[in-house]
Order: sequence, then C-alpha cells, then structure tokens
Amino acid sequence: MPKTIKKVGVLTSGGDSPGMNAAIRSVVRTCAYHNIECIGIYRGYQGMIEGDFKEMGPRSVNNIVNKGGTILKSARSVDFRTPEGRKKAHENLLKAGVDALVVIGGDGSFTGGLIFNAEFDFPVMGIPGTIDNDIYGTSFTLGYDTALNTVVDCIDKIRDTASSHNRLFFVEVMGRDAGHIALNAGIGAGAEEILIPEEDLGLDRLLDSLQKSKASGKSSSIVVIAEGDKIGKNVFELKDYVEANLPEYDVRVSVLGHMQRGGSPSCFDRVLASRLGVKAVESLIEGKSNYMVGVKEDKVILTPLEQAIKGKSEIDRELLRVSDIMST
Amino acid sequence: MPKTIKKVGVLTSGGDSPGMNAAIRSVVRTCAYHNIECIGIYRGYQGMIEGDFKEMGPRSVNNIVNKGGTILKSARSVDFRTPEGRKKAHENLLKAGVDALVVIGGDGSFTGGLIFNAEFDFPVMGIPGTIDNDIYGTSFTLGYDTALNTVVDCIDKIRDTASSHNRLFFVEVMGRDAGHIALNAGIGAGAEEILIPEEDLGLDRLLDSLQKSKASGKSSSIVVIAEGDKIGKNVFELKDYVEANLPEYDVRVSVLGHMQRGGSPSCFDRVLASRLGVKAVESLIEGKSNYMVGVKEDKVILTPLEQAIKGKSEIDRELLRVSDIMST
Amino acid sequence: MPKTIKKVGVLTSGGDSPGMNAAIRSVVRTCAYHNIECIGIYRGYQGMIEGDFKEMGPRSVNNIVNKGGTILKSARSVDFRTPEGRKKAHENLLKAGVDALVVIGGDGSFTGGLIFNAEFDFPVMGIPGTIDNDIYGTSFTLGYDTALNTVVDCIDKIRDTASSHNRLFFVEVMGRDAGHIALNAGIGAGAEEILIPEEDLGLDRLLDSLQKSKASGKSSSIVVIAEGDKIGKNVFELKDYVEANLPEYDVRVSVLGHMQRGGSPSCFDRVLASRLGVKAVESLIEGKSNYMVGVKEDKVILTPLEQAIKGKSEIDRELLRVSDIMST
Amino acid sequence: MPKTIKKVGVLTSGGDSPGMNAAIRSVVRTCAYHNIECIGIYRGYQGMIEGDFKEMGPRSVNNIVNKGGTILKSARSVDFRTPEGRKKAHENLLKAGVDALVVIGGDGSFTGGLIFNAEFDFPVMGIPGTIDNDIYGTSFTLGYDTALNTVVDCIDKIRDTASSHNRLFFVEVMGRDAGHIALNAGIGAGAEEILIPEEDLGLDRLLDSLQKSKASGKSSSIVVIAEGDKIGKNVFELKDYVEANLPEYDVRVSVLGHMQRGGSPSCFDRVLASRLGVKAVESLIEGKSNYMVGVKEDKVILTPLEQAIKGKSEIDRELLRVSDIMST
Repeated sequence: MPKTIKKVGVLTSGGDSPGMNAAIRSVVRTCAYHNIECIGIYRGYQGMIEGDFKEMGPRSVNNIVNKGGTILKSARSVDFRTPEGRKKAHENLLKAGVDALVVIGGDGSFTGGLIFNAEFDFPVMGIPGTIDNDIYGTSFTLGYDTALNTVVDCIDKIRDTASSHNRLFFVEVMGRDAGHIALNAGIGAGAEEILIPEEDLGLDRLLDSLQKSKASGKSSSIVVIAEGDKIGKNVFELKDYVEANLPEYDVRVSVLGHMQRGGSPSCFDRVLASRLGVKAVESLIEGKSNYMVGVKEDKVILTPLEQAIKGKSEIDRELLRVSDIMST
Repeated sequence: MPKTIKKVGVLTSGGDSPGMNAAIRSVVRTCAYHNIECIGIYRGYQGMIEGDFKEMGPRSVNNIVNKGGTILKSARSVDFRTPEGRKKAHENLLKAGVDALVVIGGDGSFTGGLIFNAEFDFPVMGIPGTIDNDIYGTSFTLGYDTALNTVVDCIDKIRDTASSHNRLFFVEVMGRDAGHIALNAGIGAGAEEILIPEEDLGLDRLLDSLQKSKASGKSSSIVVIAEGDKIGKNVFELKDYVEANLPEYDVRVSVLGHMQRGGSPSCFDRVLASRLGVKAVESLIEGKSNYMVGVKEDKVILTPLEQAIKGKSEIDRELLRVSDIMST
Repeated sequence: MPKTIKKVGVLTSGGDSPGMNAAIRSVVRTCAYHNIECIGIYRGYQGMIEGDFKEMGPRSVNNIVNKGGTILKSARSVDFRTPEGRKKAHENLLKAGVDALVVIGGDGSFTGGLIFNAEFDFPVMGIPGTIDNDIYGTSFTLGYDTALNTVVDCIDKIRDTASSHNRLFFVEVMGRDAGHIALNAGIGAGAEEILIPEEDLGLDRLLDSLQKSKASGKSSSIVVIAEGDKIGKNVFELKDYVEANLPEYDVRVSVLGHMQRGGSPSCFDRVLASRLGVKAVESLIEGKSNYMVGVKEDKVILTPLEQAIKGKSEIDRELLRVSDIMST
Repeated sequence: MPKTIKKVGVLTSGGDSPGMNAAIRSVVRTCAYHNIECIGIYRGYQGMIEGDFKEMGPRSVNNIVNKGGTILKSARSVDFRTPEGRKKAHENLLKAGVDALVVIGGDGSFTGGLIFNAEFDFPVMGIPGTIDNDIYGTSFTLGYDTALNTVVDCIDKIRDTASSHNRLFFVEVMGRDAGHIALNAGIGAGAEEILIPEEDLGLDRLLDSLQKSKASGKSSSIVVIAEGDKIGKNVFELKDYVEANLPEYDVRVSVLGHMQRGGSPSCFDRVLASRLGVKAVESLIEGKSNYMVGVKEDKVILTPLEQAIKGKSEIDRELLRVSDIMST
C-alpha cells in the first residue's frame, strides 16, 4: 500500500517555456482539490538545496495561467550534481514535510529527479516543459505549440519585407538537437526549404531547391534552419556559400533567438499544462513514482522516467514529404 | 483499376474558418507536385452551379498560408439542394474537365458532396474546416486551434478589467451544438465555470460554484458559456438570474461573436491544413472517394464521409474534471 | 514657498485602461528617484476612505509596465461623495503621512480630486487614464492607443469572415459620449461608414452609402458604430432598419464590449504613461496642484483640473473627411 | 495657375515599412474621390525606368489597409542615379499620361524625387515611410509606431525568460543613425539602459548602471541597443566587455533584425497613412510640388522636400531623462 502523500513540492528546472506557470497552477490546485498541501521550490534543484520554499495555496496561483516564464524561476544547479548537494536537498524536503516531488523541465531535470529518487526512495513525477518537443513519451511538450506560433508570427513579418524586396531570407530557429520547431514552423510559415539536425539534405539540394524556386516564378523565399542543423555550416556561413554559388540571390539572415522561449502560452499549452498537472499529482497520490506524464494519441499517459530520458522523440517523417510538396 | 485523375476541383463551403486558405494551397500544390491540374471553385456549391471557376497553378496560392478566411469565398447554396442545381453543377465540372472534388467545410458541405457522388459517381474527398471541432473522425478541425487562441486572448483582456474591478464576467463563445471551444478555452482562460451544450449542470451548481469562489477569496471570476448551452437561458437571462440570486455580484456580459471565425491561422492549423490537403489529393489519385481526411491519435486517417456526417464528436469528459479541479 | 512633499499617494479610479500600471510604476519610481516615499491606495477613493494603503518602493513595480488593468484596482466610491467619507479619507492620508495625491482616471475621478483639494487644501495632480480619449487638455489619454489597436485587430478578424461571405457587418465599439475610438479605429479598419455621438449623419446617408458601396463593386463592408451614436437606434435596431430598406444585405452584428479595456498596453501608451508620471510627481514637488498632466502638440503640458473637467475633447473634423474619402 | 493634374503615379522606395500599403490605398482612393486617375509604379524608381506600371482604381486597394510590406514592392535603383535612367523614367511617365508623382519612402527616395523634379519640372510629393522615424518635418514616420510595438512585444517575451533565469539581456534594435526606436521601445519595455547613436554615454556608465541595478535588488535586466550606437562596440563585443568587467553577469544577446520592418500596421500608422495620402494628393491638385507631408503638433503639415532631406529629426531629450528615472 502506498505511503499517503500529504505535501507535494513542485519546481521548474532547465530552460523555461510557456505553460510552466499553467502547470504550476495545475499542480497547486490539484493538491488543494485533494486536500494535500503544496510548496513551491524556487530556482529548481538549487532552491531545493538552499531550502528556498514557499507554501502555495490555491489563491497563490491566481492569474498566472496566461503568463510566460515561471514564477518559481529556474536555474541550473552544479551543487545538485554532488551527493552532498542532494543530501542537503533531501534534508530540506524532510524538514518541510514534503513527501513527493513534481519536476517540470526537460531531460536533464528528469535525470536529476531519477538520481534523487534512487538515492532517497523519494517519489518523483515529471512534467515535460521545453519548447523543443524533444522528449520521448509525449507528442507535445509544454511550450512547444506556443513557440511554433511565435516563430510563424515572426516569419510572417519577415515575409512582408522579403516579398516587398524579392529577397531570400535565412531564418534560424531553436533546436540544437531536434528539428521539430524548424520542421513544423517551416511548413506553417511556407518555407522553401527546411534544415534540421535529424537529416543532412546536403548543400547541393539547397542550391538546387533555390534555383528551382526562382525558375518557378517565386520572387522571394524563406529558408528555416534549426540551430543544430547537420549541414555543417552556421547560418552566416550558409549565407556566404549560397551567395557565392547563386549570385542572383541577396541573402538576409535573421536569428530569432530567445524570444522563442517567452510569451503568453497558447490555449493548447494551457490546457495541456492543466491536464498534465492533474495527472502528475493524482499519480503520486496513487503511489506511483518515477514517471513522466505526457500526451500521446490524444490521451494523457505515463512513461517511465528512465525511458523518457533515454528514448528519442523522432520527427514525423511524413512532414518532410509534406514540406517538400508544399514548396512546389 | 481507378480512373486516372487529371484535374481536381477544390471549394470551400459553409462557415469559413482559419486554415481554409492553407488547405486550398495544399490541395493546389499537391496537384502541381503530381502533375495534376487544379481549379478553384468560387462560393462553394453555388459557384459550381454558376461555373465560377479559376485555374490554379502553384504560384496562385503564394502568400496565403497565413491568411484567415477563404480566397475562394464561401456561400450557402439553396440551388444545390435541387436535382436541377446539382445537374448543372455536374455539367460544369465535366465541361471544365474536372474529374474529382475536394470539399473543405463541415457536415452540411459533406452531405452535399455525398449526394453529388451518389448521383453522378463523382469522386469526392472532404477536409474538415470549421472552428467548432464538432466533426466525427478527426480530433481537430481546421480553425479550431486558432479560434481557441482568439478566445483565450479576448478573455485575457477581459480578465484585466475584471480583476481591476473585482467583477464577474459571463463570456459567450461559439458552439451551438458542441462545447469544445467553451470547454478548452474555458480551461485555458482559467474560467470559474463552463456551460456547454453537452451537459446541463443546472443553475444550482452555477450559483453554488460562484458562492464557493467568493468564499475562497477569489475577487473576480469568468464564466464561459457556449451559445448552445443546455441551461435553458441565454447569457443575458443568466446574468439577471445570477444577480437576483447572488446580489453581491455585479455581472457583465461579453458576447465574443464573429471575430472567433477570423484571424491568421495558428501554426497548428497551418500544418494540419497542409497535411490534410496532401492526403486528400493523394487519396483521390489512389482511386478513393467519399472519405473525409482527418487526424486522430497523431496520425492522418480517412473516415467514410457517411460516418463523418452521422457520428458525433464527443467532448473529452476528462476535461470536465480538469476544469472542476482548476477552479479550486 | 511650497510645502516640501515627502510622501505621495497614488490611486486609480473609474474604468480601468491599459497603461495605468505603467503610470503607477512611473509615479513610484519618480518618487524614489527624488527620494520621496510613495504609497499605493487600493480601489480608488474607496480605499482612501478604508485606509487600504501599501508602501511602494521602486522594486514593487517590477514587471508591470506591460500589464493591462491596474494592480491598485479601481472602484467607484459612493462614500467619497459624502463629506464624512472625504473627511475619513483625509484623516487616513494624514495618519499615513501622505502629503500629495496623484489620481489616475477620468473626469469623474478628477472632480473627486478637485473637491478634495478644495476642502482640505490637499495637493492633487491628475493623469488622464481612460480608453475613450474624451478628456480636454491632452491629445491622448492612457489606454486609447491600445484600445484602437484592439479594435482594429478584432475588425481585421471580422473582415476575414465578412469578405469570405460577402457580408455586411455592424461593429459596435466603446464611446458613449465620444467618437474618437469609432472614428480612428473605423479609418484604421477600413470601415465603409462610421457613426459617432458627435454628429448625426442621418439614416439616409447610411443607406445611401451602403448602396453606393455595393454599386462600386465592394463585396463586403464594415460599419463601425460608437455606443453613443446619435442616430437614435441601437445597433440591433439599426440592423433591422437596414435589412428592411436594403433587402440585398444580410447584416451581422458584433458588439466588441469590455475586451476593449484590457490587454497589454501599446508602446505608445507605455511611453506616455512614463512621461506623464514623471511630470505629475515633479509638478507636485514644484508645489503645483490641481492640474492634469497631458500631452499636446508633442509636448507634456499641464491643464488646470477644472478646465480638464469642463472642457470637451473635440474629435478631429479633418478625420471625418478622411474617412469619407477612404471609403471611396 | 497650376497645371490640372489628371493622373498621379505612386511608388514605394527604399526599405519597406508597415503602413505603406495603407498610404498607397489612401493615394489611390483620394485620386478616385477627386476623379483623377492613378497608376501604381512597381519596384520604386527602377519600375519607373522599366515602365512597370498598373492602373489602380479604388477597388484595386481593397483589403490592404492592414497588410505589412508594400504591394507595389520596393527596390533600390542604380539606374535612377544616371541621367539616362531618369530620362527613360520621365519618358515612361509622359507616355502613360502621368503628370504628378507621390513618393513613399525615406531620405534617399526623396532625394531622387527632388532631382527628378529639378530636371523635368515634374510635380513630386513625398510621404515619409520608414520605421526609423529619422525624417525631419514629421513627428511620426509610417511604420515607426508599428515597429515600436513589435519591439516591445519581442522584449516582453525575452523578459519572461530573463526574469525566470535572473539574466541580463542585450537586445539590438534597428536604428543605424537614429535612436528613436531604441529610446522609445526601451522605455516601453522597461529597459535598464538604452544605447543610441545620438549620444555616447560611455562604457563606464553602462557598468555603473548595471552594478546599481543589481544592488537595488533587480534580478534581471534588459539593455536596449540601437544598431548604430556610439559606444564603439557591437553588441557581441559589448557582451564580452561586460562579462569581463562584471563577472556576476551572464549576458545573452538577441538581435531582433528584419522582423521589425514587417507586420500588420498599428491603428496609428493606418490612420496616419490615410491622412498623409489625402494631403499628398490634394496638395498636388492645388499645384504644390516638392513637399513632404507629415504630422507635427497634431496637425498634418507640409515641409519642403529639401528641408526634409537636410534637416535632422532630433530625439526627444526629455525621454533620456524619463528613461533614467524609469530605471530607478
């Protein structure tokens, strides 16, 4: 029979993403709904080590469902990588009467949670919060849908000026290891070509595609490039390469950068955050631990944290074809 | 062996929704990709009867992926309900060399397509385009995600003034027969209570919920109400009822109205439109007919049109619970 | 020589508007810059009577420059209309050591301030905060520019569906006594006709204009109507009237409502709020009282409160002509 | 007595800006209103040389008031710098029956117009279209207000992640020669410090300001930097410099780039464009030439083109003070 949970701690860790506040709110209110106490842990694992805690009743999360960022703040913690740091963190939780943990973050945050669980047999539940959508066990991570909208909104603006001047734009979007943002936002923004980390299409294909585009009568084009694309050149080198090989093109570069992580979450992300928060807390109440909650095939599901960390969130190959066809 | 498709006609019918243009673009470019001709039919079935057609090459759909509304325009056609009207429409298609049809719209539009197919054995493929998300055979209709974002964006604004004045707001959203928008946008916007057509929660529950809300220390609240809610009162009658029974409340009403149908589509809707357009055309090429393309459990699938029309898109009951918990 | 100001009280009163928080922030930080203390007074004059005060240091207004609504909340106060109420308010201010007042609001709020000053010789400075732009002595009130953007954004969405269906839309916007929003947003949104409180154009002109519009080949039209338009019919009666007289038109109505008061302020409103807050506090320091700060002819100026209340903010007649020409 | 104007040509030249389409629409409809013909000239002066013209009736500009970019496209023309090029252009105008020109653009475009007028005594009227607001003779250029909103919207997003991580962000905005965008958007976005081309505040001040900010308890900060700031380092060098001198800071850089030029124009820019277009055409009708229309002290005015080119649009020094006070 599972130990009764009386107080849940919740933290956000790693890069922030829109929807984290909605998830915190959901965890806090689900606790209140089940008459469980809840404390917020500031600055991720670092705040756990420093005992930077705050009681959170249901009113403490009023009016945050629509706010970007995380009210609990996030930080990377070097100390938590040491046994001493984790021991201190555990003591703080015990002292505060916390008997279960919800970790909102990405792979690295889940790894921390897993080690913590292994060392102290402490119940841990993960909620995937990252704009990159690169986590196994869920079709959508918190913040990903919002980031897609931010990116297409930016490229829509760039397209205004691109088509006014008949120019070619290279737009770099986030995604060091995963092409989800580039691929989906690229299709959404009507990109001519999309470069992603998962696949090296080769420079020849890019040149070929741009030449065909011109020949087909397109007067302006957008190429969307993930940070970690496999083509072996950064976006500025790529510009030089294309201008050297296709002198008819005047290439402009735009690096969208950190704004992709911010902004008011989309409705999709808010609802997702609400659903995942409920499932995380109720799974802890049921005595489960070491799972990540996620959504797959339209259902909220659990995936063992270990699997979530090790597995790879593959891009949808069908979308590569769709992207090709759309740039006809 | 299926008849080879040489020319596809595409039309939008019924209420317009964001993403229809992205779907038209996808149909046109998929045709071009497969060296099939494509014509656009203006004003839905009415334009089919009037022969209001236009050749559409891949460049004709430049820069529309991000536009709301439908460049082919939409209309309801009384004439198409008569055998004479449909006969005329069929003759026009034959004359123009069109040998297959993609219908972007809702239930009513699909019914028209099904009858047309039955009478003339004409290949028809449907793409679900409506903000209401009330179509069986797809988890998401085109425009639904965008409408959700529009609604939460409006309610976020209303919340600013609600919380500045400690007021109660009743916000009416679209959904005569389906509560999808109200339920999801209500959760997304942090609504206190959500009234939908699928379930009569009763007036007592509403009063009770509002009283609890006040007691719990909430200073302002939003109630989201679908047009077709089952509580048996319109939003203004509901205001009077609540004010009569809970004199401590000063209720304001906002009817969001037609703006919910417009706006630049979200990335989600653009990608969905692109995927569904590809599948629709390629299914016609494969010789299929009388299906609706949709997305379910993260995959693009086909559903017989007849089933799509007869089936009901149920709301997710889990969300009712989530909504309850969130308003703790 | 003026009395040295040591502590300023700031309140928001009347209808809230975007930019009020930016103005509060500006007042608070300008006080800090000049080593003056500042307290926030909650819920306008009512909070003054109830002694609902809060010390506000420069960090208390972090991250609010971009928030709609007012963190100090607003309320209408019946008690403040009584001498007893105002006496109580004055006592509370003295007890708290407050020796000057900044009132952010509209005409009604300024009247309250003027009476308060007359009774207790208490220094008062007004900042015009209302979306209606109906205050004499300033070309722009706080929130007006934001409201205009909200309105055109909504009408842009409505236009998507209007032009997809070749429909006529009547859009009601705020403005019970002033047509600034209707006139400017109407021009901005490309309205066919604009009805405002300042001028009765007559029903004949409306019908005439709509007929010309149809004849000129326009397939869809938007008419923008201020709440307080002088044509003597509300927006729904107007719909009936037009449909009875021009049966070729299918009129839809949209009442934009309270969302016009909310939302993140535009850059213009944030900068305006910052400038006005500085001027308000520094004018108090200089010993001035009973003025409203405003911006006219690109400069921050002072207008006696009495004049600001009595004067009328005229609409720009040139814009009526521009509107006419634009709907050619 | 002035020559009667029968046909006006309109072009957009130089960098595009939001509101150019609204200005084109205004020019076209004002012509129609006065029964004058209008032709659009594509790609600025280059299209004038190539005779790339299009008749524009009032319906040709339907539904563009809200579109970013320019439907007439823009380009820089090397040929127009040669007497031969301008002669060809003049011949094309005569052939097309054009007898006056409206040039929408910036300084460079106006210089071209002035030379053209000097050589051929051809009536020219300028409309200031550039996001930089760096043109003498108008308080606001077309696109400037929209760009400010785009910039603060981006920085609001960046602030979400900055404050979640207690980070310092350097945000580079447009403005090679003018600090209007940086100064106004910086105040609007609540920047800690603002670096502009007009004034070298010195590196010491920046370091000092950041140190004070930390000491005052601010956990995150934004510094807004105009492209052409006078501090003698680009934004990445500045990051290195600050990190070397203030090791407690982890600086992130974001270069907003070309998206600042795009997007749907704000209501302010749409109304401004409408007013300026009317004034430009009606001034030509009155026989005026070689003026730029602008808005100053709330009124539409004319400034001789020569003055508009030579004069400098000074930043508002008061705003530097406001900025200082706001970062208290």
